[in-house]
Amino acid sequence: MTSTSKSCVFCQKKIQENHFFASENFLAIYNIAPILPGHSMVIPKLHHQSITELSDPELCEMTLFARKTVNLLMKTFGAKAFNWTIQEGEEAGQTVPHLHLHLIPRVEKDLPHPGDWYPLLKESEAKIIDSDVRSRFSYDEIVQVVERIRSVAKEMLG
Amino acid sequence: MTSTSKSCVFCQKKIQENHFFASENFLAIYNIAPILPGHSMVIPKLHHQSITELSDPELCEMTLFARKTVNLLMKTFGAKAFNWTIQEGEEAGQTVPHLHLHLIPRVEKDLPHPGDWYPLLKESEAKIIDSDVRSRFSYDEIVQVVERIRSVAKEMLG
Repeated sequence: MTSTSKSCVFCQKKIQENHFFASENFLAIYNIAPILPGHSMVIPKLHHQSITELSDPELCEMTLFARKTVNLLMKTFGAKAFNWTIQEGEEAGQTVPHLHLHLIPRVEKDLPHPGDWYPLLKESEAKIIDSDVRSRFSYDEIVQVVERIRSVAKEMLG
Repeated sequence: MTSTSKSCVFCQKKIQENHFFASENFLAIYNIAPILPGHSMVIPKLHHQSITELSDPELCEMTLFARKTVNLLMKTFGAKAFNWTIQEGEEAGQTVPHLHLHLIPRVEKDLPHPGDWYPLLKESEAKIIDSDVRSRFSYDEIVQVVERIRSVAKEMLG
């Protein structure tokens, strides 16, 4: 893998240290502006924009780790369904140029229509860019929810 | 893996035979109601609703195959970006209960805003259910586009 990037938000030490789950090369972090409870992201530890930059074993590791992460999130947030999405490249709506797989646990009637998650995600990504209007968790709130997920992970892993 | 399901649209022989790319256990098929040129899906050959039903090697196979498929789609449709999304479970917007990973190659200004793909996907899934209002490719049109992608695949694989 390549190195980290000083200008990238997902390479920041404070963001990466506050992960709730980890594999050798990937981290699961909570979204600072979640569109629904549990909205998290799987990111590589090092600075990659694209899945095409990962080796075959790294891509497998990311996917198996993401499946474990989404199971953990469903257990923590009482869900049996989820959205799993990558927007790769600016033309596809990627706003932070560091690969991130969105994982959003879903429960019945959490939104008026099950498909309503995406417009919220779009709005959420726009808010990350436009810091004047964003509505997001404080660092303490993120730490609290991360602790909650970590404790479920400990139970699951025995 | 389990068997196929007689009532499932993605288990139909006619649909599966019209794939444009294949691995041992997975197929890439063109969406009958594409929201943008190239909109395709990776599906397991056998009837699985959920990624949790796949073994670790099967999930790796699916992901590596999907990366090859999205590269093929980007080459065929002149794109450098893509959306990659699973809606798992009814609460998350899954309408056809057979696992399908949407792959949508994206090019600059294909939609007024890069994030506009999702409302179209939602509308497209609704149309598959409501056959009276759906606007979709004829079988011949699907065969034509599948032939085009197959010929690019042959070039890529030498």
